[in-house]
Amino acid sequence: MDYDALFQKALDGLHADGSYRYFAELERKAGQFPRAFHHGIGREVTIWCSNDYLAMGQQPDVLAAMHKALDETGAGAGGTRNISGTNHYHVALETELASLHGKESALLFNSGYLSNWVTLGTIAARIKDCVVLSDALNHASMIEGIRHSRAEKRIFRHNDLEDLERHLKEIPLDVPKIIAFESVYSMDGDVAPIEAICDLADQYGAMTYLDEVHAVGMYGSQGGGMAQELGLEHRLTVIEGTLGKAFGVVGGYIAASAPLCDFVRSFGSGFIFSTSLPPMIAAGVLASVKHLKKSSTERDGQKKAVALLRQKLGQARIPYIMNPSHIVPVMVGDAKLCRALSDDLLKRFGHYIQPINYPTVPRGTERLRLTPGPLHSEADIEAVVQALSTLWKDYKLEYAA
Amino acid sequence: MDYDALFQKALDGLHADGSYRYFAELERKAGQFPRAFHHGIGREVTIWCSNDYLAMGQQPDVLAAMHKALDETGAGAGGTRNISGTNHYHVALETELASLHGKESALLFNSGYLSNWVTLGTIAARIKDCVVLSDALNHASMIEGIRHSRAEKRIFRHNDLEDLERHLKEIPLDVPKIIAFESVYSMDGDVAPIEAICDLADQYGAMTYLDEVHAVGMYGSQGGGMAQELGLEHRLTVIEGTLGKAFGVVGGYIAASAPLCDFVRSFGSGFIFSTSLPPMIAAGVLASVKHLKKSSTERDGQKKAVALLRQKLGQARIPYIMNPSHIVPVMVGDAKLCRALSDDLLKRFGHYIQPINYPTVPRGTERLRLTPGPLHSEADIEAVVQALSTLWKDYKLEYAA
Ligand SMILES: Cc1ncc(COP(=O)(O)O)c(C=O)c1O
Ligand SMILES: Cc1ncc(COP(=O)(O)O)c(C=O)c1O
Repeated sequence: MDYDALFQKALDGLHADGSYRYFAELERKAGQFPRAFHHGIGREVTIWCSNDYLAMGQQPDVLAAMHKALDETGAGAGGTRNISGTNHYHVALETELASLHGKESALLFNSGYLSNWVTLGTIAARIKDCVVLSDALNHASMIEGIRHSRAEKRIFRHNDLEDLERHLKEIPLDVPKIIAFESVYSMDGDVAPIEAICDLADQYGAMTYLDEVHAVGMYGSQGGGMAQELGLEHRLTVIEGTLGKAFGVVGGYIAASAPLCDFVRSFGSGFIFSTSLPPMIAAGVLASVKHLKKSSTERDGQKKAVALLRQKLGQARIPYIMNPSHIVPVMVGDAKLCRALSDDLLKRFGHYIQPINYPTVPRGTERLRLTPGPLHSEADIEAVVQALSTLWKDYKLEYAA
Repeated sequence: MDYDALFQKALDGLHADGSYRYFAELERKAGQFPRAFHHGIGREVTIWCSNDYLAMGQQPDVLAAMHKALDETGAGAGGTRNISGTNHYHVALETELASLHGKESALLFNSGYLSNWVTLGTIAARIKDCVVLSDALNHASMIEGIRHSRAEKRIFRHNDLEDLERHLKEIPLDVPKIIAFESVYSMDGDVAPIEAICDLADQYGAMTYLDEVHAVGMYGSQGGGMAQELGLEHRLTVIEGTLGKAFGVVGGYIAASAPLCDFVRSFGSGFIFSTSLPPMIAAGVLASVKHLKKSSTERDGQKKAVALLRQKLGQARIPYIMNPSHIVPVMVGDAKLCRALSDDLLKRFGHYIQPINYPTVPRGTERLRLTPGPLHSEADIEAVVQALSTLWKDYKLEYAA
């Protein structure tokens, strides 16, 4: 049995349809974001596709907290949370995250992926007869968590309240249910009708599970996410977030009632049986969350950059999806073209924008996804739009109406 | 529907049978391992149950590398590996890990849990008709990966070659197979018959998947694990390891052929759709792996401490499981008693040894698991055995024959 040949055959398929992923080997430079050194082409580039949305990865308080905790506590946690791996900083961070979302409790994971996968996987598997209602565009981590639970799953059309209600009506009132959805959908940048979904959840007795991965840090007066911005935190059963995007470090969490968090803490295999995050990481995140609770400078800078980029794209008639969030998807619609544009942007102009292809987005909706932040200057924005304009002309692409 | 009541009821069950987990809130002190401040009891304690087996979490080269990378690259990676989150340090670390295990390639994950879950979950799901033969005592992360794949699973009796062969015989030769097992089993400290399993794999055309989580860094002339110690690396299809135990930081990886790693890189949802490890973490691990490649001081120190602890336990006739590894399980056999002993060790004597209860070990085999390392002094070892002796007398427990 030639196993490597099996693996290679599957990879050949990706090469053939243009969706094989080439990783860009970067060296981000603290203090010089969004600039980085690109090892593949051997020169400095401007990054436009990072999810370190607010550049907190180079924020001085965050770095200072990490240096300090590294000196104090060392490199790693030294164990799972239960077996010698709970540090003072983990506890302090969980308290801070609970308070950020106005919840009783919070639970840390090694990534946002794990927080979704473990929480949905554990709750849906262990609550007898639980049905999960899942938005059609939910993130892979939620989909895999639901798959793992083997609970009944019903997919409702993306952000479609009527379709969601149709499903809810079909499930007996006394059957346990979870509605799982996101606030900001990361690829189109659209936002869920959170309040109306909570209304339906109340009416039909469902729990609500909201992934705020692309909203925490950036929305709400304290960076508590869309639910905070809309004053709806108390209406959600679980708010889930990442510590690796706007907060700039790594990790994930849920914030919810004390019994729910304790339940996942006690029964979630992917939580229990894994070395916990280094205390120094928790310390850095703690500084980041605290900073974004009181400072709006980063959020304001991001809003300004997003608005300016949209304005300039509009003037150049480069087609992008308009949405109420910070994400600027420039639509291409073909995997190979998307890669070619990305390559040209990089090599001719020094702008790094990773092509977004299947399976991250449906085939035919391939795109360049730009996430301008507070450190992209007006000159940066002008330069990237100028480069796109040149390519639009060179490749004879369609302009926006 | 009162969901919190459902969660609370499940938690009440844990309280009732003594298996509810209380986390010890610690503050490890770099430079003073194995000492830590215990916030629950407000005093300094000696940690005996850490999986930072070689105290690399306070090793100066590791800390220096992390400080440096933090200053250079900032706090986080800023994206998934594909979308701006691959850093120079990730690439360098993957190269180093491949070389450590004599493999073509390696792939980093955010934890050892993820490396098992994603790799087994992806391969077993995507290779048509794949059957997984899984050792009965495999770690939760492998079990969940196999469960996730929905491939056919056959559990063979722990370390039992006859039972494994019986299963292999029942599967047609041309059906793809994976034998998944561990080298050092972390709770009993016993070691798999790796060579004989590889022989069977060859005979029946199976891939071999070896979890070396409790062996990397500690066995083999360069810390390449049990397979390296036994000169068997080339016979294993996949070697999986953690960066959070003997290497002292956090993360996980696989080392295997280039097509296999590229396959998991390209199709593994839990790899693709998650923010990558902070570059600074990769830098710290890189320093740790390099250090343990050339230095045997830590391994020698560990061996000495383990031998001395066993000798003293033997003299005191405290019952422990003998095994060929570094793990010293002192058997208790009852969840509540195990917790009581652990509490007394902590409060009366300042020794922190977390009780190991169900579901980490089968009911009736509850234990205190000690992992002495190079920094536990002779005096430390004498003190902990003295404390155990006192408790054995106070509680009128059975002595070893
Ligand atoms: C919607 C959504 N949820 C969860 C995750 C996973 O979070 P993390 O990157 O922290 O693993 C991501 C992206 O990575 C995401 O886009
Ligand atoms: C055998 C085994 N495999 C995998 C893991 C997971 O590794 P990590 O702690 O890096 O998630 C563990 C323990 O945590 C383990 O004991």
